[in-house]
Amino acid sequence: GPVSTIVRELRCMCLTTTPGIHPRMITKMQVVAAGPQCSKVEVVATLKNGKKVCLDPEAPQIKKIVQKILESNESTA
Amino acid sequence: GPVSTIVRELRCMCLTTTPGIHPRMITKMQVVAAGPQCSKVEVVATLKNGKKVCLDPEAPQIKKIVQKILESNESTA
Repeated sequence: GPVSTIVRELRCMCLTTTPGIHPRMITKMQVVAAGPQCSKVEVVATLKNGKKVCLDPEAPQIKKIVQKILESNESTA
Repeated sequence: GPVSTIVRELRCMCLTTTPGIHPRMITKMQVVAAGPQCSKVEVVATLKNGKKVCLDPEAPQIKKIVQKILESNESTA
C-alpha cells in the first residue's frame, strides 16, 4: 500500500559495499546525495548482468567509472 | 504486461536535455552507458522537488555535480 511504498523509499539502499568491481562490468551508475531517506551518500552500480551492487562513495574509482561512461559517448556519436 | 515492460526498458530515456540546472537542486545522478536500450549515453538528474531532467552528457558540469554529491558525504560522516 501507499504507506509501505513511502517507507521503502525512505531508507538507505546500501547496507554493504562491494569492492573490486571492474568498470567494464558497469552499465549504469547512480549517485544519491544524503537526505531524509538516508544520512549518507550512496553509490549504486548496475552491472551488465543486471545485478546491482553498492560501491564505496569515497573510493577514487567512482569518479573514473563515471568519466569512463561519459566518455564512451564519443565513440558512438 | 511483461511485453510492454520490456519495451519500456529498451529505449532511450532522454529525448531532450535541460540546461541551467543548479547543482544544489540535484539529489540524485544517474549515468547510463550506451547499450541495446539506447545508442547514446544518458544522464538523468533527480531534483529536490522530485522531478527528473536529462542533462547533456558532454557538459563539463556533470563531473562536478557527481563530485559535489560524493564530497557531501564527508560533511555528514
